[in-house]
Amino acid sequence: MIMTHPEKSGPTASPQSAPADTPCSDAPTGAGTALKLVLRRVAIDTYRENVAYLHRDCAVYRAEGFQALSKVEVRANGKRILATLNVVDDEHIVACAELGVSEDAFDLLGVADGHPASISQAEPASSIPALHRKISGERLSQEDFRAIVHDIAEHRYSKIELTAFVVACNQNELDREEVYYLTDAMAASGRRLDWRERPVVDKHCIGGIPGNRTSMLVVPIVAAHGMLCPKTSSRAITSPAGTADTMEVLANVELPMETLGEIVREHRGCVAWGGTSHLSPADDVLISVERPLSIDSPGQMVASILSKKIAAGSTHLVLDIPVGPTAKVRSMPEAQRLRRLFEYVAGRINLTLDVVITDGRQPIGNGIGPVLEARDVMRVLENDPAAPNDLRQKALRLAGRMLEFDPDVRGGEGFAIARDILDSGRALAKMEAIIDAQGAKPFRQDQPHCGGLSFDVLAEADGVIIGIDNLQVARIARVAGAPKVQDAGVDLFHKLGERVAKGQPLFRVYAEFPSDLEFARQACARSSGYTLGTADEVPLRYVEF
Amino acid sequence: MIMTHPEKSGPTASPQSAPADTPCSDAPTGAGTALKLVLRRVAIDTYRENVAYLHRDCAVYRAEGFQALSKVEVRANGKRILATLNVVDDEHIVACAELGVSEDAFDLLGVADGHPASISQAEPASSIPALHRKISGERLSQEDFRAIVHDIAEHRYSKIELTAFVVACNQNELDREEVYYLTDAMAASGRRLDWRERPVVDKHCIGGIPGNRTSMLVVPIVAAHGMLCPKTSSRAITSPAGTADTMEVLANVELPMETLGEIVREHRGCVAWGGTSHLSPADDVLISVERPLSIDSPGQMVASILSKKIAAGSTHLVLDIPVGPTAKVRSMPEAQRLRRLFEYVAGRINLTLDVVITDGRQPIGNGIGPVLEARDVMRVLENDPAAPNDLRQKALRLAGRMLEFDPDVRGGEGFAIARDILDSGRALAKMEAIIDAQGAKPFRQDQPHCGGLSFDVLAEADGVIIGIDNLQVARIARVAGAPKVQDAGVDLFHKLGERVAKGQPLFRVYAEFPSDLEFARQACARSSGYTLGTADEVPLRYVEF
Repeated sequence: MIMTHPEKSGPTASPQSAPADTPCSDAPTGAGTALKLVLRRVAIDTYRENVAYLHRDCAVYRAEGFQALSKVEVRANGKRILATLNVVDDEHIVACAELGVSEDAFDLLGVADGHPASISQAEPASSIPALHRKISGERLSQEDFRAIVHDIAEHRYSKIELTAFVVACNQNELDREEVYYLTDAMAASGRRLDWRERPVVDKHCIGGIPGNRTSMLVVPIVAAHGMLCPKTSSRAITSPAGTADTMEVLANVELPMETLGEIVREHRGCVAWGGTSHLSPADDVLISVERPLSIDSPGQMVASILSKKIAAGSTHLVLDIPVGPTAKVRSMPEAQRLRRLFEYVAGRINLTLDVVITDGRQPIGNGIGPVLEARDVMRVLENDPAAPNDLRQKALRLAGRMLEFDPDVRGGEGFAIARDILDSGRALAKMEAIIDAQGAKPFRQDQPHCGGLSFDVLAEADGVIIGIDNLQVARIARVAGAPKVQDAGVDLFHKLGERVAKGQPLFRVYAEFPSDLEFARQACARSSGYTLGTADEVPLRYVEF
Repeated sequence: MIMTHPEKSGPTASPQSAPADTPCSDAPTGAGTALKLVLRRVAIDTYRENVAYLHRDCAVYRAEGFQALSKVEVRANGKRILATLNVVDDEHIVACAELGVSEDAFDLLGVADGHPASISQAEPASSIPALHRKISGERLSQEDFRAIVHDIAEHRYSKIELTAFVVACNQNELDREEVYYLTDAMAASGRRLDWRERPVVDKHCIGGIPGNRTSMLVVPIVAAHGMLCPKTSSRAITSPAGTADTMEVLANVELPMETLGEIVREHRGCVAWGGTSHLSPADDVLISVERPLSIDSPGQMVASILSKKIAAGSTHLVLDIPVGPTAKVRSMPEAQRLRRLFEYVAGRINLTLDVVITDGRQPIGNGIGPVLEARDVMRVLENDPAAPNDLRQKALRLAGRMLEFDPDVRGGEGFAIARDILDSGRALAKMEAIIDAQGAKPFRQDQPHCGGLSFDVLAEADGVIIGIDNLQVARIARVAGAPKVQDAGVDLFHKLGERVAKGQPLFRVYAEFPSDLEFARQACARSSGYTLGTADEVPLRYVEF
């Protein structure tokens, strides 16, 4: 029970043990009404971290006892978002009566500049106790994961809390039941597509292999066979090109959902950008801390990949796990463990899964970077003799496994069917139809417009190539400007097992800006990524590295 | 070996497997020189997180392929700092040729607005591999901790990496050797004071008990005895008042190091603000993520406290560990474990340590908030009958233990000596001398200027007080405005074991702003923090809660 003192003009009739020497007057409540501010978009891109900006002399800031980095709740027009507070000392950024918000936060609120808005201390997200239990190493329940993922998708976690969740899940490896809970919670956090037929097939690679653009071959092959394959791909996050970046060289990849639906109904396939933020919004938020930490634990990988497949309406998935000394997975036992975890979770969420363990010892294809990879893909589709054979073979193998999801295809026949579709030109025709449907872009694969600058990296001695470091080659391509600069990247002239002579070019680096070229040159000077040796030192496929 | 192509005008003489259809020209290096920008202070307080702001159309931003939230290195005048990148779309915040930095970052660079500056992708901090090993649960070496703490103190860790470190250390509890490594590394990361005599005594409480202002009593008692007690205290972080906030009601606490040295030489003691950022810079940075996560693991607590004591030149420390159902430490076994960890690490760093486990069942004293706590302290020093006895007794007990660090004081005699010093008025005289030396502020403890607004919280029934929630009482005082509003806070009228009648005031809340008063009222409505029951339900001291 709480009582306010009645108005008084003289000394207080103090309660028994209250000191008589602290006369204090009262005041009517008045709070709440005084807290209105005017919303202002502060044109700062904080990459998915909502930031609110208050002037240090703002009455609300002083009254509420906020501190910089406090978590605050911003309300406008019935919407509420959580944000981190930055304190501003410049009226040009925000004035005293304004409540500034960063670009993403402004978009989330969805009202105009100048709209009335209010700000208050944020209550901690309701799942924070569960987060603390995970930090102390406890096993969480399905309800805990649902609550945490819901709060994450609603942007109720600060970057610090997100990191704590990612690290706590990474360290105390989640058990497989918990990985299922996490996957399920992530799939439930966003929209879910329903294609109203089965099977809906997809393929996915866990990543880490430069040039590995099999999706752009698999989709037209499988769609030409008549299977439904609505491929939504990602853009590069830490790699020099994602499938969406490469497809974008050839066609428009950012399509409204309805257009995409029409294309898929007519052509049985597409290669579009996933717009993952709608399908798995929590994943999108988690990536913002996983990426800078380079954390990619098995549990989080499984949950991230499978939740998006389920949300995208896939019923059947071929999963590519490359193994190699510089791949994400470096040994067969590790690949088998990961396979079993994928299979367990897929089983729980009713996704038919076929895992293919592939050769991840080196990049696939020759080009690395959007334009160079698009060139390789088109060469394979056109049955060009210059087409990289490793890319062709891998795509056929994966497409074959997908075709075997068709109940009318006998086990073992998929590869031959895929090869017939490719060799006959039906895959190329399907790809051209999809490109036209998505909106073709001018691209001459026989003469892509490469970055205006280049240099070659040469063999330092005679020898056989016994190692190509996926990570270093990707880093060089990225520093050279890929994927932001579409035609920047690396073009490999030689692969594992080939003999080269001293001074012979190993690969060429393309860039558009002199500074990028210089950074790439420095990166190559630290390490070209190539190791030379003798023929017997070439690592075998599928061995312990 | 790296070679640039010679200038060419015709088709390239391509190396054997290079495609002949990608003619690419070369360009001179030119990088580096093109990257100069003009430094601009962006008046945004990001609370110790360095942020760099680049306009989206800035040539450097485009050329370097930065992404928002990239870690970048900003260089100006030979100094280099790491920062997180925010991308700006408003020339009023930063223009295309400018490199904006947040306030803290600008101060770290220490140059004027308009100074030439450059920015580049930051190399990861060299201790990141050690961080990743800790994330995967490995034990780290002394060199690892030194490298990590050095990078943290140098602001080379992003907020995400800091959180990962804190969570990884929290979860996989550090073993005691690792806690020593962390303590040692943190003490080594900053300045170290040398008072050129022994003993240099200090006392410290692990915190969590509102009103627990014993330092302001212990220092004058011990200094009056002639022991050197240069007390550097903290400001409140999550509590309603720290010792520095309370002392600041009476005297200036922000003093230059030399002035402080003179005061200590003349008066044998002081109560000043620690300026901890110089003594343990890494701790200061770690707090920026520990605070919002409410993480306070034993290892990090020990390292944080002891590293600062060592850096401040203390040779002898009395450590207060309060135990109670709403204290940081909630059981005797937990207190004993923590004591042993403190003792182990203190032994390794040659700090003489005496741990005192105290009653943490409820707040100490009556007032909570800077002015109200200063009132209680002065009443004890003045031997005022209204002085809270619990505060007096606890201060005497701690001061007695410190006095026993004096080789001339027999074990068990410290308490009586402390009481004589307090009762005789020598402690008050010493405190007045210290206040005058630090710069007295006007304060009449018989009539402190309390927040202009107040309300009382009343007993809801007849009964005996069987619980006072330290956390809730602190929260109420904080929401009411403490410590930012010096005279805001809570004044307790009754403590554990006292009988109250329905409608009798339990405590009074003081605030200055109507909105604060309203928030405090809402907090009290959720819970007053008081529990009523019967006399036999009052928790005993030192029992399992």
